[in-house]
Amino acid sequence: MPTELTPTPTMAMKFLKKTRSSAGSPIVGSPVLVAQDDATSQNKVLRVDNMNQAVVTMQYDVRGLVPSVAEGISKELKEVKERSTEGESNRSYDKVLFCNIGNPQSVGQKPISFFREVIALTDCPWLLDDPRTPELFARDAIERARELRGYMSGGTGCYSHSMGVASIRERVAEFIEHRDGYPSDPNSIFLTNGASAAIQMVLTALISGPQDGILIPIPQYPIYSALIALLRGERIGYELVEEKGWCLDMEGMKRSVDQARADGIVPKGLVVINPGNPVGSVLSYEDLTQLVIFCKKEGLMLMADEVYQENIYCDKPFHSLKKVVRDLGPDFNDFELVSFHSTSKGMIGECGRRGGYMEMVGVCPGVQSHVLKLASSQLCSNLNGQLMVDLMLNEPHAGEESYEKFKGEKDSIYNALLRKSKMVHRKLNSIPGVSCQEVEGAMYAFPKIELPAAAVEAAEEAGQEADTFYALSLLEETGLCVVPGNGFGQKEGTYHIRLTFLPDEEELTRALDRFEAHHHAFVAEFS
Amino acid sequence: MPTELTPTPTMAMKFLKKTRSSAGSPIVGSPVLVAQDDATSQNKVLRVDNMNQAVVTMQYDVRGLVPSVAEGISKELKEVKERSTEGESNRSYDKVLFCNIGNPQSVGQKPISFFREVIALTDCPWLLDDPRTPELFARDAIERARELRGYMSGGTGCYSHSMGVASIRERVAEFIEHRDGYPSDPNSIFLTNGASAAIQMVLTALISGPQDGILIPIPQYPIYSALIALLRGERIGYELVEEKGWCLDMEGMKRSVDQARADGIVPKGLVVINPGNPVGSVLSYEDLTQLVIFCKKEGLMLMADEVYQENIYCDKPFHSLKKVVRDLGPDFNDFELVSFHSTSKGMIGECGRRGGYMEMVGVCPGVQSHVLKLASSQLCSNLNGQLMVDLMLNEPHAGEESYEKFKGEKDSIYNALLRKSKMVHRKLNSIPGVSCQEVEGAMYAFPKIELPAAAVEAAEEAGQEADTFYALSLLEETGLCVVPGNGFGQKEGTYHIRLTFLPDEEELTRALDRFEAHHHAFVAEFS
Repeated sequence: MPTELTPTPTMAMKFLKKTRSSAGSPIVGSPVLVAQDDATSQNKVLRVDNMNQAVVTMQYDVRGLVPSVAEGISKELKEVKERSTEGESNRSYDKVLFCNIGNPQSVGQKPISFFREVIALTDCPWLLDDPRTPELFARDAIERARELRGYMSGGTGCYSHSMGVASIRERVAEFIEHRDGYPSDPNSIFLTNGASAAIQMVLTALISGPQDGILIPIPQYPIYSALIALLRGERIGYELVEEKGWCLDMEGMKRSVDQARADGIVPKGLVVINPGNPVGSVLSYEDLTQLVIFCKKEGLMLMADEVYQENIYCDKPFHSLKKVVRDLGPDFNDFELVSFHSTSKGMIGECGRRGGYMEMVGVCPGVQSHVLKLASSQLCSNLNGQLMVDLMLNEPHAGEESYEKFKGEKDSIYNALLRKSKMVHRKLNSIPGVSCQEVEGAMYAFPKIELPAAAVEAAEEAGQEADTFYALSLLEETGLCVVPGNGFGQKEGTYHIRLTFLPDEEELTRALDRFEAHHHAFVAEFS
Repeated sequence: MPTELTPTPTMAMKFLKKTRSSAGSPIVGSPVLVAQDDATSQNKVLRVDNMNQAVVTMQYDVRGLVPSVAEGISKELKEVKERSTEGESNRSYDKVLFCNIGNPQSVGQKPISFFREVIALTDCPWLLDDPRTPELFARDAIERARELRGYMSGGTGCYSHSMGVASIRERVAEFIEHRDGYPSDPNSIFLTNGASAAIQMVLTALISGPQDGILIPIPQYPIYSALIALLRGERIGYELVEEKGWCLDMEGMKRSVDQARADGIVPKGLVVINPGNPVGSVLSYEDLTQLVIFCKKEGLMLMADEVYQENIYCDKPFHSLKKVVRDLGPDFNDFELVSFHSTSKGMIGECGRRGGYMEMVGVCPGVQSHVLKLASSQLCSNLNGQLMVDLMLNEPHAGEESYEKFKGEKDSIYNALLRKSKMVHRKLNSIPGVSCQEVEGAMYAFPKIELPAAAVEAAEEAGQEADTFYALSLLEETGLCVVPGNGFGQKEGTYHIRLTFLPDEEELTRALDRFEAHHHAFVAEFS
């Protein structure tokens, strides 16, 4: 029997339309992401009621309800298109614009040719010595592929060491040393299937029981809340200060940690995301320094999510927490820090590669070797992703054959992101009832939306969070898919949405125009 | 501070030598895989004593002590070689032969060209329309790459759906239908980072608390015991019958499940590995049928590890459990089965790709959608691995340009494995005190080794399992790296080792000769 995996978007939409047409206002129903067990389920071995309840309660909204409904609409539009003349869609748009996820190449960003050439050649090593190869591949790509092949005795088809190929870890360490001006040890670096796998390993090691708490920002990227729920730990939120560009609030953080302790929770770790996801901020050196001092004082292991370190659109530079810790001098030599990086973001945007790494500094050797054992049980991360990490950190140099082309491709991606970060910020702030902090980094705007009281009530009636209600209506009316703020966490009584600015500029401009029109209509409807 | 990740092999070896030279017999010390926390650790936030104890207690020996010591020796030998004339190694071998892990390409197996050509072209889509491409790539590889590109709107650089690319899941379903003669639903298939990631997702969903038990074979592949420990469930062993070619013992299985219930455990799932790892068996249709009936009667979800389904070296065919279940007719329509497959084994041996899939049949829709949420939190499996799954299941056809070459490569791999499976079996059984069941499938021999009582005592004195003691001595003296049977589980009082027969035939023959000589010497020493 085919199981329904997505919330039968047509069903959700039908309900949306039905209630709207009957009530005259867009009262969205309660389409659920999670299919329910049915009558036949009661005789099953494994049911929702007796499965791991931590899996049941965990939430992950970046691919949650709104994107699932969007997938359904997208499918519906494609089917209409395929039947072509037979019948037009009754929607005012002909495709869904997916701004829910930082997946650059899915919305048109081109891969960087040099990286792909090298990757292809490492998979076909016999081409390295074929005299015809330079007709199709740049000579420095051939050289680079030869060099990378030399790192892997058996090529890309082998399991590597569970931490990753040793030579690639050495090059990651060199990159970190060069970036920060402080030593980095290849034996403290793990190559992983994206940053997500690394985050899961560290949290798995860290959370020893239900009393253990992890401080995470509000708002945060939901892998943290999802994994803390899965691991049955405690989430301790600390609010970022929206009106000051989402900066840190050290006093608030102190209150959070004190309150958690008063509640019997043992705070063990703190997550910081810089540049910020979903908020698009770049934290100042001063904020980061205060954060490290706070973690040391409170006895917290610091987890630094720095996957957007190349995505900076303001004049504040990115400071790695590794550097900040080392700048603090010998008193912080033992400070426990784990930093994450990924091939999915930056200008490279190679999400499908699932490449990433983490650096563990100051971590007990025993703990680290148990983390290695965790990695070993999954054998290793994929080699293609490992190689992409190497390439991301070792770009072609001036004078090499691929350099000009590479630079052109990379600059063009960066410049477009830069322009769009400004454009999105300007446009959103021009809409009454919408306010957005400067987009300083990452790939997202996280505007605050003022919702009329009647809309909040209507959402409540429909059993939905008000911003989910808003995002579903936006999707339905404009084809723009965003993630509601409640998927990330937000200050009580405020409503936000997260949208990426990855689509091409014209398309994004048109989408924001539709957003503006819809916002006016929505507010009018509920006022 | 550089942390020691491997058990400082030189240290372990030094200890081995020292005790041997002083006592006259090879009393191996207790080198430990896991580095211990040191004096500075007591001030750390995260220590071995306060980290997740499930991580501390889990074991995974395929990459455990013996392989780690082997890595150290390997490094030592390479260093000696690099210093060349300066000093010869005082070992009787010049390289370590890694027979601890099913990693074919690491010991010389060549990748299948067609698959690699297609993979490379999907990463460089601009080559598809370049008129010079057919000089370097087969035309059917170009066509295939074009077809695969069509499956992925944004190419290999995008996150896919969390279950994997829809069209690839459709082709997996077609493969299963063709193999079994029964329908398969693409919406019940998840593409995963190797089978390991799939196994982890299913066990995570299944184990709801410390009372939940999973039946696993003795011996088993240690990812099962490792993950059950990590998830704090209960392991319920069922013994395979060694003297009958490692077949199932249904009465013993019944006793295991009854005993577990008597102990307050709730048996929820059963794992079967067919063809067998580490035992190299192929289960009969009758055994598999009895197993399904048993699971239904006892209310157990069945997990079928079928990653070696192509590795058959006997006249018994492989029967998928999906087919066995469907053959049982309508009474078994609701039977809950999850089957795993991988790109790492078969003749393809693409371990570094981390490609795999699972098919869930009869599983509650609610449960499946929660598993999808688990997958979503890691976004998706790597696209390269997903494509390799598609290729593995869709080989070139007779008449296509690549067919002859492909067939030659695949047959040559298969024929070598076939010969080696016979040769290893024959050779091992020719050694007094060593007995090995027929190697019917997979990539391993799992011989029983009779150890002299004095050796067992010496091992005990050294705080080691006797087969670990034996395997370390074998490694030290011959350079052959195997995994001791205790890493997989074995009947009490018996000792085994698992060795792959993946290295090339000459090398393997020489290694087995060294094995024989060492076995005689070892027995003589302890008799």
